[in-house]
Amino acid sequence: MIYFDNAATTKPSLSAVAKAEKFIKDDYFNPSALYRGGLSCSREIAAAKESVLKNLGISPSKYEVIFTSCGTESDNAAIFCSGNRGAYITDKGEHSAVYQSFCELVRRKADARFVGLNKDGSVKVDELFDCVKTSGAGLVSIVHVNNETGAINDISFIADELKKINPSIIFHSDGVQSYGKIPFAFSENIDFYSISAHKINALKGCGVLIKKRKSRLFPLIFGGGQENGLRSGTENVFGIKTFQYAGEERYADIYGNFEKVQEINAYIRANIDKDLFTVISGENASPYVLSLSAKGLKGEVIMHALEEYGIIVGNGSACSSKNRFSRVLEACGYGKEILDGVVRVSFSQDNTLKEAEEFTARINEIAKRLKEVMR
Amino acid sequence: MIYFDNAATTKPSLSAVAKAEKFIKDDYFNPSALYRGGLSCSREIAAAKESVLKNLGISPSKYEVIFTSCGTESDNAAIFCSGNRGAYITDKGEHSAVYQSFCELVRRKADARFVGLNKDGSVKVDELFDCVKTSGAGLVSIVHVNNETGAINDISFIADELKKINPSIIFHSDGVQSYGKIPFAFSENIDFYSISAHKINALKGCGVLIKKRKSRLFPLIFGGGQENGLRSGTENVFGIKTFQYAGEERYADIYGNFEKVQEINAYIRANIDKDLFTVISGENASPYVLSLSAKGLKGEVIMHALEEYGIIVGNGSACSSKNRFSRVLEACGYGKEILDGVVRVSFSQDNTLKEAEEFTARINEIAKRLKEVMR
Repeated sequence: MIYFDNAATTKPSLSAVAKAEKFIKDDYFNPSALYRGGLSCSREIAAAKESVLKNLGISPSKYEVIFTSCGTESDNAAIFCSGNRGAYITDKGEHSAVYQSFCELVRRKADARFVGLNKDGSVKVDELFDCVKTSGAGLVSIVHVNNETGAINDISFIADELKKINPSIIFHSDGVQSYGKIPFAFSENIDFYSISAHKINALKGCGVLIKKRKSRLFPLIFGGGQENGLRSGTENVFGIKTFQYAGEERYADIYGNFEKVQEINAYIRANIDKDLFTVISGENASPYVLSLSAKGLKGEVIMHALEEYGIIVGNGSACSSKNRFSRVLEACGYGKEILDGVVRVSFSQDNTLKEAEEFTARINEIAKRLKEVMR
Repeated sequence: MIYFDNAATTKPSLSAVAKAEKFIKDDYFNPSALYRGGLSCSREIAAAKESVLKNLGISPSKYEVIFTSCGTESDNAAIFCSGNRGAYITDKGEHSAVYQSFCELVRRKADARFVGLNKDGSVKVDELFDCVKTSGAGLVSIVHVNNETGAINDISFIADELKKINPSIIFHSDGVQSYGKIPFAFSENIDFYSISAHKINALKGCGVLIKKRKSRLFPLIFGGGQENGLRSGTENVFGIKTFQYAGEERYADIYGNFEKVQEINAYIRANIDKDLFTVISGENASPYVLSLSAKGLKGEVIMHALEEYGIIVGNGSACSSKNRFSRVLEACGYGKEILDGVVRVSFSQDNTLKEAEEFTARINEIAKRLKEVMR
């Protein structure tokens, strides 16, 4: 099998899982318990938090880590629980976790606004700053790496500029497609940053919200007071430790992985049949995501045809696969013909150039065949 | 090691974990994906839901299952998101997940009320019904099995009576210490029921909210529309399947396990030194929880002394172990002397009578020694 749907989820790292397995088999204690086993689990969680901050090169004196159940929960917590008193600003390229939270804000009659996108899926930065200036923005949420096109928003630049406009603006970024993949300098003007474990070869059921210590946060979920009172519920120790170990594996060679994936991505870009396919992802996109469209064909048909050869790709975001068209690519300005033919190919450090070769040959052949049938 | 803190968390069933392991190693797909691997994961989640309803003997035509990240999240969702328009009524014996949610309602200026407890930790049922009648209750939340004393509230009777008072009352029960342990007839007047996976030998990071189909629920977490739009976030397939398999193991011998644990519990009740200990748990309590108090001694000291012999017990609820006294046992009417000496012993089907014998001998000996030192 060639698995090219790594933006939807990744294959768990068996070495990370094996290392964390003792938290199922032996050290299964409740981290709130006051005996040695409990205290030890609690310390292990603290170590996992340190590891995340270290990977991002940010200081534990300025930031804290809150473990949640997923990236979606992290996004919801930052948006609904950071005490914003002004307008809410986001963009049309957000993952549903942010986008649908903003739709809920609209339903609650809050002043929530959606800034437009460039053709590659990146945010129109001038429009964003204009909107912030005119709306009295209190909270801004901009995705780091667009999960459909891979477009990278320069969130550190955006955060810095926003704080120049108004230092009290709260800035959140969904970093789910970036953490463990895209090296970048984390600006101290970022207040909140969301991460998902299962996108970096750890497990579903674990997410992170990174929070600037000075920024306020109220709980979304109330109870036993875990996570410094900010997220109650018994901590998912096995999920947290697997996330830590997988993260350390990713960051140990983040540059090497980036280059490797870039090569795979470049091969496909160079060898895909240009008469049949439009490359939607921009040249500066994350190499981990490559959005293609077979004009006049249906992405879903191509996806299923590839599956017959054991090649797994996505069509648009798996998280919103119930809609026919991608609202994100629509917002990029593409018409029906392109939208219908979208195939999202997304990589991990474990993919190979050989896989890219087979994929490219197969998808070219499939699209050609489908075109001929249509004549 | 003798592990007698099963109300805090349980040792994961290695057979359940082994059976679910393929959802880490092979079938790691995103359940929202439209290719075979994704669709298969989605069907596996549906099967897990059927299994929960089957265990409780309730019909999929009347109830649905929502997977959450923990029992705490399930409680929060039922309390905050069921669209209640009247007063909120609970009792003083709730787990923090419900209790602190009600405290938050008080902070939000909602009409939230706490009904008193009997000496054994069960709810004062007459006070509850009076409160419901006079307050214009819209939502009532009563724990099934008290996590500190094991007191069983007859939630089906309570639900039936509540609906006689007013059929539009929403009734929720936290079933975290009951599911997989206490056989009971589930009344169709129960609207919501919360379950936690890690209390039945499955993993931390997975919970369930059972919802009557006719009852309304709004999402607590917005995003990709998973769980029928009621709980977004990529589903924790491995956690969900482990929960299913562990649940099936528990229900395969729920009566046998109950009897076995009852024997263990009865042995300790009979052989604990009555000059040194007060048994707080009532005769009709869940056999899985036994609350003891060594009058005039400190529960924490006894807990640590037992630990030296490899015996693990809790002192009060691990989830709120930062408070000196248990607010629940205070509400039962116990004074400082008893509250200080509380030790919570809680069992699983894997414990043995031999362990109970060793525990009883040790705790009697420790309490005697500590008393002598104090003279």
